[in-house]
Amino acid sequence: METQPVVVGVDLGATSLRAGVFTPQGQLLTVDQAEIQAEQGSEKGVRRITQLIERLVAGVPGARLQGVGVGTTGPADALTGVLINPGTLPGWVNVPIAARLQERFGVPACLENDGDAAVLGEYWMGAGQGVSRLYMVTLGTGIGTAFVVEGRLYRGAGGFHPEGGHQVIDPDGPPCYCGARGCWESLASGTAIAKRAREALADSHNPLAQNSILRGEAERIDARDVVEAARAGDALAQQIIEQAADYFGMGLFNLLMLFFPDMILLSGGVMRNLDLFMPAIQGWVEKSQPYLPSGQVKIAPAKLGYYAGIYGAAYAILQRVNPPG
Amino acid sequence: METQPVVVGVDLGATSLRAGVFTPQGQLLTVDQAEIQAEQGSEKGVRRITQLIERLVAGVPGARLQGVGVGTTGPADALTGVLINPGTLPGWVNVPIAARLQERFGVPACLENDGDAAVLGEYWMGAGQGVSRLYMVTLGTGIGTAFVVEGRLYRGAGGFHPEGGHQVIDPDGPPCYCGARGCWESLASGTAIAKRAREALADSHNPLAQNSILRGEAERIDARDVVEAARAGDALAQQIIEQAADYFGMGLFNLLMLFFPDMILLSGGVMRNLDLFMPAIQGWVEKSQPYLPSGQVKIAPAKLGYYAGIYGAAYAILQRVNPPG
Repeated sequence: METQPVVVGVDLGATSLRAGVFTPQGQLLTVDQAEIQAEQGSEKGVRRITQLIERLVAGVPGARLQGVGVGTTGPADALTGVLINPGTLPGWVNVPIAARLQERFGVPACLENDGDAAVLGEYWMGAGQGVSRLYMVTLGTGIGTAFVVEGRLYRGAGGFHPEGGHQVIDPDGPPCYCGARGCWESLASGTAIAKRAREALADSHNPLAQNSILRGEAERIDARDVVEAARAGDALAQQIIEQAADYFGMGLFNLLMLFFPDMILLSGGVMRNLDLFMPAIQGWVEKSQPYLPSGQVKIAPAKLGYYAGIYGAAYAILQRVNPPG
Repeated sequence: METQPVVVGVDLGATSLRAGVFTPQGQLLTVDQAEIQAEQGSEKGVRRITQLIERLVAGVPGARLQGVGVGTTGPADALTGVLINPGTLPGWVNVPIAARLQERFGVPACLENDGDAAVLGEYWMGAGQGVSRLYMVTLGTGIGTAFVVEGRLYRGAGGFHPEGGHQVIDPDGPPCYCGARGCWESLASGTAIAKRAREALADSHNPLAQNSILRGEAERIDARDVVEAARAGDALAQQIIEQAADYFGMGLFNLLMLFFPDMILLSGGVMRNLDLFMPAIQGWVEKSQPYLPSGQVKIAPAKLGYYAGIYGAAYAILQRVNPPG
């Protein structure tokens, strides 16, 4: 039987684990997922990861494993391959995931922040293929940013992942857990949208709140509810989404001015409602045009969805096994 | 006579022209300057540049010229070496400076934005020697930014120079010529400081204005006057400087979060008054500490002053003659 060189990409999330087997050319041969059951500790968690990899690779005829990449909910130290202490995986303190996988499979392994993995995936096989300066923004409960230049991740001091979601864009904005007021995440994330809706509904002097279809469920409201209410014509919800979209556009404007990227990809839950956000985004992109030569920057939705992480993790280890020129 | 390989670095400003002859190791052998007399047109201007270079190189015994670099008031197209249409050199439209120098001297020549040249100079022989991720902010009449990663300039789409001075940090701020409201430059530059002082002095309801030593000269006030008045204990001037310093720190905070640089160098006129700005800057740097691994980022004054441009222009052409690894 002919052998097939493969790499594995793993996406380690707060609740679930996904892995895929790829050819070096980027073909996804097989993919599966499992529960991570993080609360049972990192020892069992790492075993679940290795078992998923074993099972998947065994299912590919002639597979010759060349490396394993992991994209993980952060923070992670990409230089040492150690998962530091994610708020989303309680008790997983300083877990040397890359070293453990390397030991187990006898091939190189690496660890990347999940945002970094996602942008690498989009660069490799998604919406940003071959783009010289590819920026990606993930708008979900928070706002994550990641940047690839000529196919390589931009890393900050110490190899760490910058936190563009915490740029300050309105000093009169609400306090954020990051310590500043009015950072991007505190104004435009899903969490910010839900919080603003709850506050508005609690304001008995707000006439829009009195007439809102969201009224009465303030406690349980999340960003999705606000989006749905906006689509249903609710004036309060529309006002909140418009404001969040304007702040979101403002943060993108700053990225345009600071990085002059060739493309910004948008991903994450709220981006499934890109139509609601796009008018405000477009307005801010237009403001940047006089500065952006030939106005060539593209703002586009990411393409790989939930698979971006495994694609990117696979590409990350491929880059280490066969460094680009 | 032994020959001495040299490169020339030129700094082309709005009113003056400076050039230096350097060894490839970074020793400045000789330097001089001249008026550019921009209003006489680019033909005569280019001749003045070549004459200055000829004169300087002729003064170095055994000099063998290897290349000429020019740092220029922007905008400039670094990829083609063409000066586009600077507001500060009226009528200098699409001047192919690099090609003209290459023709005249028969050696490679290149053109960089002056902010880019300055950060290259500081990286080569100034305060940022060998720093992996070196960001530089120049606070003068405007705010300029430039970034060097592993010794190479970060270039945006189309090879152009990003405009970090126009990141928006307060949407309630004043309108800027860039088209946005409350960008960094509109809130923290020397121009912003002077404008704010003039506006405050024109406000007959502002008690600080009524008692200010700046009163009566509102029309002619510039940032330097405000700084001097603040040092002399003037309450209005102190308030204006404190506010500008806070905005300046806020913009730096964003750079820290978005780039995680190893060092940010500060330069420009206002930075000669770093003591007035440092308390606010320090406060913002502290806010970024939880995110910056090991808190290792350094904020420091640039070192080469008016010579940064010629050092950087020389280094830029050296990099092209002998590309780094």
